[in-house]
Amino acid sequence: MSKVEERLAERGLVLPAPLKIPEGMVLPFPEVNLRGDRAVISGQGPLNADGTLSGPFGKVGADVTVEEANKLAEMTGLAMIAALKRTLGDLDRITGWVRVFGMVNSALGFSQQPAVINGFSHLILDVFGPEIGQHARSAVGMAALPMQMAVEIEGEVQFTP
Amino acid sequence: MSKVEERLAERGLVLPAPLKIPEGMVLPFPEVNLRGDRAVISGQGPLNADGTLSGPFGKVGADVTVEEANKLAEMTGLAMIAALKRTLGDLDRITGWVRVFGMVNSALGFSQQPAVINGFSHLILDVFGPEIGQHARSAVGMAALPMQMAVEIEGEVQFTP
Amino acid sequence: MSKVEERLAERGLVLPAPLKIPEGMVLPFPEVNLRGDRAVISGQGPLNADGTLSGPFGKVGADVTVEEANKLAEMTGLAMIAALKRTLGDLDRITGWVRVFGMVNSALGFSQQPAVINGFSHLILDVFGPEIGQHARSAVGMAALPMQMAVEIEGEVQFTP
Repeated sequence: MSKVEERLAERGLVLPAPLKIPEGMVLPFPEVNLRGDRAVISGQGPLNADGTLSGPFGKVGADVTVEEANKLAEMTGLAMIAALKRTLGDLDRITGWVRVFGMVNSALGFSQQPAVINGFSHLILDVFGPEIGQHARSAVGMAALPMQMAVEIEGEVQFTP
Repeated sequence: MSKVEERLAERGLVLPAPLKIPEGMVLPFPEVNLRGDRAVISGQGPLNADGTLSGPFGKVGADVTVEEANKLAEMTGLAMIAALKRTLGDLDRITGWVRVFGMVNSALGFSQQPAVINGFSHLILDVFGPEIGQHARSAVGMAALPMQMAVEIEGEVQFTP
Repeated sequence: MSKVEERLAERGLVLPAPLKIPEGMVLPFPEVNLRGDRAVISGQGPLNADGTLSGPFGKVGADVTVEEANKLAEMTGLAMIAALKRTLGDLDRITGWVRVFGMVNSALGFSQQPAVINGFSHLILDVFGPEIGQHARSAVGMAALPMQMAVEIEGEVQFTP
């Protein structure tokens, strides 16, 4: 078991199954694209343990509270770690997080995107540690996200090929 | 003729002329920025054969249908391939697509961004093949895009310097 | 003094102090994340000399004019250069700008994002010169930004490790 998975287990955190793609939806790209020592991660959303997309859905600041969205961002982090594990096999091959782009489906006037995406960043820093887990970040407000997701995050990590 | 151009020709697809920049608009950056083995592609929109921006314009889900926007995303892919050809000379120097960020000018409540950007992804996979064409992707909803474009896409490829 | 700082001094431009993070806000990530020869820059906003966030705030095209927003984009550029200086020590270690993602908090129907982000691009080209300063760019409209910022920009540069 990798160190990252040990830390997840210690915290009682479980990696979700792959996204159950809704009927009729076509997603012609991998979860993670490996090029050289770069693992580039496609936009991920919050998943339940069985891979179904997790609500609440809609706009943060109207349909979804900051606290709920913070939890959705953490769940998105778990989905991303699960995708990295499926692609890389061993999460300890990750030598450093590079960038994270946190997208919050935002109601008019909502401006607490950083508090939402902190649910993701705190998870990554906790399970990868402060050096490997360190990442550049933006957390911004989108007009809309696929499937009315409240949060979507993309990113990139470095790994040992 | 490169393999990619052969495939474009077989499909009857024609690369558009460079963007005809509207009167008074200043864009102080290249279409593609080469750094090491990275070709980083500035945000592109759908172009007609003569380089003028293609409509329909406005918000997908209100002013523009999903089908129209899917076609605009494919046209944006052709504009991007044209930009890569002008910058790299030979499209077969591209060794792998890295990431694609698909931005859809989205009406309130519109959530089919993936179906729109699939017009782009399917083109890239078709003409570059499944290995070189494979890309990480997000497809998300923007509040607004320059010149009321319905679709804008940025990305990055690896190439042989 | 680095060449870049000489050029800033010649133009009477002063780098701002680090962002004074508002009470209660947590930002668990660095301004700039160094990985190999990549310096990846977290989303930055316009700062006053003392590190407080600069207004005007709100949506460009409604609360903020294009001219004001263009100035805010330039101020964001200075904040980014300041962050790079704190992280790298010497700005002349930067060998090339890679990409810039310019986000404009946009009112309904506003579509002059490029004119706004030009305030940033012109500064970078002016003080880094046309070769090192050259960058791929997108300039797009966001539904919302943290702290009601009118402009936020993220990016990446290459540097000599």
